[in-house]
Amino acid sequence: MSRQENIQKRITVAVVNGTGYGGLELLRLLAHHPVFDLVEVTARSEAGKAVSSVFPSLPNLDLRFSETVERAELAFVALPDHAAVEIVSHLLAAGRRVVDLSAGFRLRDAALYPRWYKYEHPAAALLEEAIYGLAEWARPDLPEARLVACPGCYPTAALLALAPALAAGLIESDLIVDAKSGVSGAGRTLTLGNHYSEANEDVSAYGLGGHRHAPEMRQELVRIASAAAHAAVDNTPLRLTFTPHLVPMTRGILATCYATLRPDVSAETVRTVYEQTYRDEPFVRLAETPPHTKWTLGSNLCFVYPTVDSDNGRLIVVSALDNLIKGAAGQAVQCANLMYRLPETLGLPCEGVYP
Amino acid sequence: MSRQENIQKRITVAVVNGTGYGGLELLRLLAHHPVFDLVEVTARSEAGKAVSSVFPSLPNLDLRFSETVERAELAFVALPDHAAVEIVSHLLAAGRRVVDLSAGFRLRDAALYPRWYKYEHPAAALLEEAIYGLAEWARPDLPEARLVACPGCYPTAALLALAPALAAGLIESDLIVDAKSGVSGAGRTLTLGNHYSEANEDVSAYGLGGHRHAPEMRQELVRIASAAAHAAVDNTPLRLTFTPHLVPMTRGILATCYATLRPDVSAETVRTVYEQTYRDEPFVRLAETPPHTKWTLGSNLCFVYPTVDSDNGRLIVVSALDNLIKGAAGQAVQCANLMYRLPETLGLPCEGVYP
Amino acid sequence: MSRQENIQKRITVAVVNGTGYGGLELLRLLAHHPVFDLVEVTARSEAGKAVSSVFPSLPNLDLRFSETVERAELAFVALPDHAAVEIVSHLLAAGRRVVDLSAGFRLRDAALYPRWYKYEHPAAALLEEAIYGLAEWARPDLPEARLVACPGCYPTAALLALAPALAAGLIESDLIVDAKSGVSGAGRTLTLGNHYSEANEDVSAYGLGGHRHAPEMRQELVRIASAAAHAAVDNTPLRLTFTPHLVPMTRGILATCYATLRPDVSAETVRTVYEQTYRDEPFVRLAETPPHTKWTLGSNLCFVYPTVDSDNGRLIVVSALDNLIKGAAGQAVQCANLMYRLPETLGLPCEGVYP
Amino acid sequence: MSRQENIQKRITVAVVNGTGYGGLELLRLLAHHPVFDLVEVTARSEAGKAVSSVFPSLPNLDLRFSETVERAELAFVALPDHAAVEIVSHLLAAGRRVVDLSAGFRLRDAALYPRWYKYEHPAAALLEEAIYGLAEWARPDLPEARLVACPGCYPTAALLALAPALAAGLIESDLIVDAKSGVSGAGRTLTLGNHYSEANEDVSAYGLGGHRHAPEMRQELVRIASAAAHAAVDNTPLRLTFTPHLVPMTRGILATCYATLRPDVSAETVRTVYEQTYRDEPFVRLAETPPHTKWTLGSNLCFVYPTVDSDNGRLIVVSALDNLIKGAAGQAVQCANLMYRLPETLGLPCEGVYP
Repeated sequence: MSRQENIQKRITVAVVNGTGYGGLELLRLLAHHPVFDLVEVTARSEAGKAVSSVFPSLPNLDLRFSETVERAELAFVALPDHAAVEIVSHLLAAGRRVVDLSAGFRLRDAALYPRWYKYEHPAAALLEEAIYGLAEWARPDLPEARLVACPGCYPTAALLALAPALAAGLIESDLIVDAKSGVSGAGRTLTLGNHYSEANEDVSAYGLGGHRHAPEMRQELVRIASAAAHAAVDNTPLRLTFTPHLVPMTRGILATCYATLRPDVSAETVRTVYEQTYRDEPFVRLAETPPHTKWTLGSNLCFVYPTVDSDNGRLIVVSALDNLIKGAAGQAVQCANLMYRLPETLGLPCEGVYP
Repeated sequence: MSRQENIQKRITVAVVNGTGYGGLELLRLLAHHPVFDLVEVTARSEAGKAVSSVFPSLPNLDLRFSETVERAELAFVALPDHAAVEIVSHLLAAGRRVVDLSAGFRLRDAALYPRWYKYEHPAAALLEEAIYGLAEWARPDLPEARLVACPGCYPTAALLALAPALAAGLIESDLIVDAKSGVSGAGRTLTLGNHYSEANEDVSAYGLGGHRHAPEMRQELVRIASAAAHAAVDNTPLRLTFTPHLVPMTRGILATCYATLRPDVSAETVRTVYEQTYRDEPFVRLAETPPHTKWTLGSNLCFVYPTVDSDNGRLIVVSALDNLIKGAAGQAVQCANLMYRLPETLGLPCEGVYP
Repeated sequence: MSRQENIQKRITVAVVNGTGYGGLELLRLLAHHPVFDLVEVTARSEAGKAVSSVFPSLPNLDLRFSETVERAELAFVALPDHAAVEIVSHLLAAGRRVVDLSAGFRLRDAALYPRWYKYEHPAAALLEEAIYGLAEWARPDLPEARLVACPGCYPTAALLALAPALAAGLIESDLIVDAKSGVSGAGRTLTLGNHYSEANEDVSAYGLGGHRHAPEMRQELVRIASAAAHAAVDNTPLRLTFTPHLVPMTRGILATCYATLRPDVSAETVRTVYEQTYRDEPFVRLAETPPHTKWTLGSNLCFVYPTVDSDNGRLIVVSALDNLIKGAAGQAVQCANLMYRLPETLGLPCEGVYP
Repeated sequence: MSRQENIQKRITVAVVNGTGYGGLELLRLLAHHPVFDLVEVTARSEAGKAVSSVFPSLPNLDLRFSETVERAELAFVALPDHAAVEIVSHLLAAGRRVVDLSAGFRLRDAALYPRWYKYEHPAAALLEEAIYGLAEWARPDLPEARLVACPGCYPTAALLALAPALAAGLIESDLIVDAKSGVSGAGRTLTLGNHYSEANEDVSAYGLGGHRHAPEMRQELVRIASAAAHAAVDNTPLRLTFTPHLVPMTRGILATCYATLRPDVSAETVRTVYEQTYRDEPFVRLAETPPHTKWTLGSNLCFVYPTVDSDNGRLIVVSALDNLIKGAAGQAVQCANLMYRLPETLGLPCEGVYP
């Protein structure tokens, strides 16, 4: 089908679980998408209510929450992990295409689910089919995809920061990702940790014993580097430490990534590799100075800033994005655009709401 | 010219002083406006620099700051007050239309400038011509306007809250506007008051001796009420107390407005008057519950919530908006759309970036 | 007993419900009080746990949460309203003195409880005995008090702002209190409203249909004014509108209070009245400029700033305090100091943690 | 002199430059110090003004800013770096003892000043005499010290986190310190970076090309490890990468420190080493869970949390403190207490203002 026809023809879409922050952001982005026609939004707890009464920030969205998807050709699933897996299987069986924002189909190896997600994967056969939807690397596979597993917010920031260097063989395989996230990354569920009075004027680390986003980062870094045929990566297991932090802001992730530079890799080489990697990317921008998460607020942008600590022979790459957009809903729409061979940027904000 | 033709034909526009927060927000909104073609952005201090290097949040804006306006048919002026007046006169003399975001042409009575703005107005003749650009009340006058004086952020919130009640004769003429503003309202200039460590975790009142936005509120309230022919308003001078406050957030204004209800005015009457006033407004929404500034972040929306304190015979109206959009840049674009008979919502975000 | 002896002799005290924010702040203040010896802290949910493991900010408090008070001579009760009433009765019956931070004994008229607190008061006889513990006005009654009912955080701010003017007959009896509170005022219980991502970068009003702190303000304003024998106040019912707002900070209340000035009351008279009222107060300070809540953070201070809006014949008084200290725990300790004829400032911080 | 006598005898102290945040916090701490008698506060720009009018948060401090120190026996110098050096020399020459909060005397090697601080050190002879005032390691040297150079806020956090492991030979000499600081760390001077609207809802890294606090960390880590006689450290130059970040809060530093564990070092060994190191420290606490900066707000506490990432053979140590207290003014008072053989905790808050 030609691009022209696609733009003419509307594609019906649904959001499954429109009441979490990922789902809400999908609603905002899809409200004006020129091709995707948002026809259904599910939410068990709010079924029957007008979306605009639950979310007054969307006063023009003329839809009510429903219990199930009945009509949409494409479903965006924004459920918590375990809940997503079953519903995704049903949606696929009913002939729909699915963009899943949960972790339910991100790991290729079903054996990893019990350790990291505390459940046996009930649909392991789909793990191989699912396309890991980091659009910048998944582009060729998306048009045929039935099921896209969108990366987590942390992996998006880490992969966009480190994959170019690893793929180009610039660094050793010992990596540290020290990430700082806004509180919305922890979702809308009430916990003491996201109580305003507790989270405000505070910074803390968490997940020090191992965070569930780490295996996903490792899997994709190895895959991208292997594809680039760097033997060192294939044979040496990645030594990847990932430490997430909570910082007192609503949105944004800043990932500060550290790696040991290989001998004789210059700062110029590093810069060139990143420039070549991202030159034509609509949403990934090479920053001239250390990036601010605020540059990305409300947009699908990710800024990447590679720099060399020459005193210590290290590569440091800082990346910044809006965790609910490039780290979730925006990436999902970006993938969906590619699934339907639409212009990749369709309906996606490319400017940060600054300040 | 028909609407169809307008959409076809691009209109060249300029932003004068694109480095303040009002100017920056204009750049964001105009970057993708389907009719207005942003061709020039001035900024004395940054002339020659790429806009995207000064504001990385606008990575796709392919423009450099210039010193003057040379080509644009329409100029948005986002200068500080006194600086604006002279430049606006020049722009008009050169045959351009102007939407001015400063206070330079908001007051009809030139005699008020020395007291409130500390200067003698050098172009008093234009004060009469200027249209006060509160779009919801200025709509009929905008298509012919050469010069539109956009309301301040506080007056926008106060007028949208109080004008319906005053115009309908529901309230006495003693008014209190207690407004809470985010820090961006104070601009990008560095002061101890907007130093993060001073403004964070703090609330304070200011301008208690009289704030320069008060005469503008009074002028327009009287004008709107007079137009509605309520003698009581004409003859009784408004007793309007306005107290602005700084609250620790970047964007948003919440105005809590108090007035004495006239006898026998019921809550139902109040609600009906507000519903009738705003029923067809694209950006002003009657809220079902007390509104949150966060509902409006990043959008041109204003929520209005009228309620009756029956124990004390008072009307309380709470309004919420984004001070940089409906309170500044968005309102300017809304007026400009009307100046060119374009659809009023063209290029303006109608959804809040929530949370 | 002489003051000297009191300082020698330690007085055993307990905190009932040490896990809310009021209770936690009591623990911090009492940890080093030179006379009060904190021997017990109750908390049903955490009984048996070390206080320092639940609250790492108190690493030196060598106490475990218990279920009941067994030894203390004086109990500070920091329970939610209804829960407090029963326990306070028991504590008194067991011969202890009580400083109650709940609303359970603040209203003299038992008939008000069903409307405002949704329960029939089970110990109405105690309402008459209870001393309303706004220390600045309750001083003479405190040394003999068995039961002190500490004012709410909002009433403390409003009363310190308005009582002097009302008592001196400077103003009419139509009052508006527009108060802005940090989120900790809503307590430690989890609600969507105090979720970080919802409360951050947001301001909203609530309780517009009538807030339960209003009758308490009205009761005490009338009492203070009556004591000062101003007939006008006695006979005219106060027309008091109170609108609380939530602002994105953890601590602090700013109350902006409006009243109509009586004819011929000058700004000088106002200033003099306030100066005379607060001249010798250790914790209430007349501000030279509009006060900031940040000045009070972590201290028992309240700043009061009366000003005259002469254009409109209004008195505006702004007050600022830390809602958990002068608005709760600090006030409780201040009252307790007076109950035992100790120096009023004992153990209370008189400096704000700034910035 | 016996401790008893010291407590009897008041020691006169001065704060040089009481208008920065470090100086202001010194004023707060010294206002009630039981032995140090604050007799002078200098500030060129505010000379003659009452401290309490410049800083209303200190309403009881009955002092005026002066231009010079005339009487005090001990001076706390809270000037920017270069300015401090000259004044410290004068103060010492006049026979006073000095606790300097600047970096002017922190580096032993005068040759480092031109690179990192952009000036030739004018008093290099004093560099050897100065005691680096990290109280936990400087204790034996402080009683005789004439000049104490207080560590920077970042080095305090990093050294307390890493020194035990390095001194005990648990880790290799490749270190990464990823630190997150509140905005007050950047001082009270106005910059675009600490403008509220720019810093709020934002995280960013800075100093990626090398931050001036890094050489100080390296110097002291080597010194402490050398003292513990671990040859590996002596001979291998430390490979220390330090990346500071700005997070949207006023106070607090969280340092997340990474190092490669030596073979066969177990998590138990790590915990034991840290427990032994800090067992008797009044201000350094081993945390049971990852620490929060909020636990330390307003206090001189530092929480340290060592943990082993066994999948990757890394030690991760997280430390948290209040940058203006344990990272500046509190540490200075702690050192001064030790200089006069006073109890180390005198006048220092040991409880965080939470929440």
